[in-house]
Amino acid sequence: MSDYRFLKACRCEPVDKTPVWLMRQAGRYLPEYMKVRSQVSFLDLCKTPELAAEVSIQPVDILGVDAAILFSDILTPVEPMGLKLDFVPGPVFEKPVRSMADVDALIVPDPEEGVPYVMETIKILRRAFEGRVPLIGFGGAPFTLACYMVEGKGSKDFAWIKKMMYTAPDVYAALMNKITAMDTLYLNAQIKAGAQAIQIFDTWGGILSPSDYAHHVLPYTQKLINGLDHSGVPVIHFVKGAGAMLDTVKQAGGDVMGLDWHVNLGKARDILGADMAVQGNLDPTVLFAPKAVIEREVRRVLDENAGRPGHIFNLGHGILPTVPPENAIAMVEAVHAFSTKG
Amino acid sequence: MSDYRFLKACRCEPVDKTPVWLMRQAGRYLPEYMKVRSQVSFLDLCKTPELAAEVSIQPVDILGVDAAILFSDILTPVEPMGLKLDFVPGPVFEKPVRSMADVDALIVPDPEEGVPYVMETIKILRRAFEGRVPLIGFGGAPFTLACYMVEGKGSKDFAWIKKMMYTAPDVYAALMNKITAMDTLYLNAQIKAGAQAIQIFDTWGGILSPSDYAHHVLPYTQKLINGLDHSGVPVIHFVKGAGAMLDTVKQAGGDVMGLDWHVNLGKARDILGADMAVQGNLDPTVLFAPKAVIEREVRRVLDENAGRPGHIFNLGHGILPTVPPENAIAMVEAVHAFSTKG
Repeated sequence: MSDYRFLKACRCEPVDKTPVWLMRQAGRYLPEYMKVRSQVSFLDLCKTPELAAEVSIQPVDILGVDAAILFSDILTPVEPMGLKLDFVPGPVFEKPVRSMADVDALIVPDPEEGVPYVMETIKILRRAFEGRVPLIGFGGAPFTLACYMVEGKGSKDFAWIKKMMYTAPDVYAALMNKITAMDTLYLNAQIKAGAQAIQIFDTWGGILSPSDYAHHVLPYTQKLINGLDHSGVPVIHFVKGAGAMLDTVKQAGGDVMGLDWHVNLGKARDILGADMAVQGNLDPTVLFAPKAVIEREVRRVLDENAGRPGHIFNLGHGILPTVPPENAIAMVEAVHAFSTKG
Repeated sequence: MSDYRFLKACRCEPVDKTPVWLMRQAGRYLPEYMKVRSQVSFLDLCKTPELAAEVSIQPVDILGVDAAILFSDILTPVEPMGLKLDFVPGPVFEKPVRSMADVDALIVPDPEEGVPYVMETIKILRRAFEGRVPLIGFGGAPFTLACYMVEGKGSKDFAWIKKMMYTAPDVYAALMNKITAMDTLYLNAQIKAGAQAIQIFDTWGGILSPSDYAHHVLPYTQKLINGLDHSGVPVIHFVKGAGAMLDTVKQAGGDVMGLDWHVNLGKARDILGADMAVQGNLDPTVLFAPKAVIEREVRRVLDENAGRPGHIFNLGHGILPTVPPENAIAMVEAVHAFSTKG
């Protein structure tokens, strides 16, 4: 099963056509997803293996993508650390982490006890997909999880986490160490349950200067990736907004670098070198355009890659909720058609 | 007066110490500003030359910066194009531009009639600052103004403007041409009134892929900069989020590249070459930190520049409203102290 097109591209091996999937491919743009979602809250959907599996399967059936991804949320494993989580609809932690006492109170749970439904969903999906597509598991990078835990919710300037980083570096380090320990157990449990690749989302890593990233984020992501039992399980590392510091981000390790759409994919490959695959990087809003424009832009991204092995096609960020599904299908078909060898 | 430290740095000439100012230095973090603002709405403050001048002078007195900047808003000159503007507190246009009919209805006003208070403020400020600091005028880049005009307000994914760009390129081009014509007249009027440098803010240029930026933004900014009567008046071009496409942005012209904090300043200079000055790029949240951290980070940015002529110190984006003024003062003092020659 290691000759899936997607897994071969992760290893920079030649493929018959460029593999493609979409971040947030299980989501609100699909009426089929909305139907399931109308019966249950977002958090309950994450926590109910049969339903989470159902929405994970939908985009594989509908779009014809080359990989499936577990339906869950990066904050799911944070709740059993002792932080009550709500979605209103954005994520909110009732009691943000602000002091050493708050950090000390956090638990590093056994994922089999804390989030058993995630492992159960993975097992259902592996049975459903066997011989068809590989399954990607995922988690948030320690820094991105820390951002939510310290801010308590989304933020514009991330003043709380940066204040902690600058004025209480010991509290920051204690928190990051605890999150990294949780994350390592969590992602290893996903691998043990059957995840065939792991994507690490560092949604907020790009809010920092390259210097702060190197000092305050990189060591923890590096430790996480080093701590994964990933022989044969490729690791995709996606740091949004990191286009001007890819050389630094590469030092974290991993097999595939996720690229947002703010960077020329060809230039990124030149910086990263031939030993690292890339994933990306179409602007998600291109999927609002007519089919001819979608095809032109798919071709542009493929041209930037210039046939180098080790390219997984994707959007540069999650698919937007108001995209017509037929446009996502047009993108997938264009990737396969334009990249077919011989 | 062309031997102001700030203007010399814009021309890449040697200086006695690195000049420094702060984007949004006239603003809410200053109690003196809040006192003026408590008497009048934000828009009325922009439209009342004596008060706009008063708040422009405050940071020069309080912080000891090397340049003043006109107090205004990038959207001020858009209102006389025929779009009613409100701040609630973010900017809102009642009737966003969505069709060719909407574009046709826009006026390209004579700035002396449309925004006479801006030119009047500049004249007051030149008298107030003569022999002390130079005065920077400014405007929004055509694309950033178009974003607000088409979205009607701030946006997360800028779906409307991108839909227009992809599905109605003729409407988009007509709009951009009209804005560029307005902007050229507006910034030339500022220069005529006495502005000694011009900063062009492209707050949203970085939301695009490098390819879309090159096709849909660059030609208009280039036309704007070429159309400015700027013999002796340097142009600073600041595109937020453009760290991975600085080589492309440079093609727009201008004398100084504004840098946000997501890029290593030294690497940016390597890309831009010795003929282009840079301005930036401390992370604005560093001003929440204790003085010792502020000093360390100022030194880091100066070290990245490594003594090359043509560096104007600034934040990588506007100063945040909750920064203690004494921290901004500490930053300015550190820049001057650490960069003093011999």
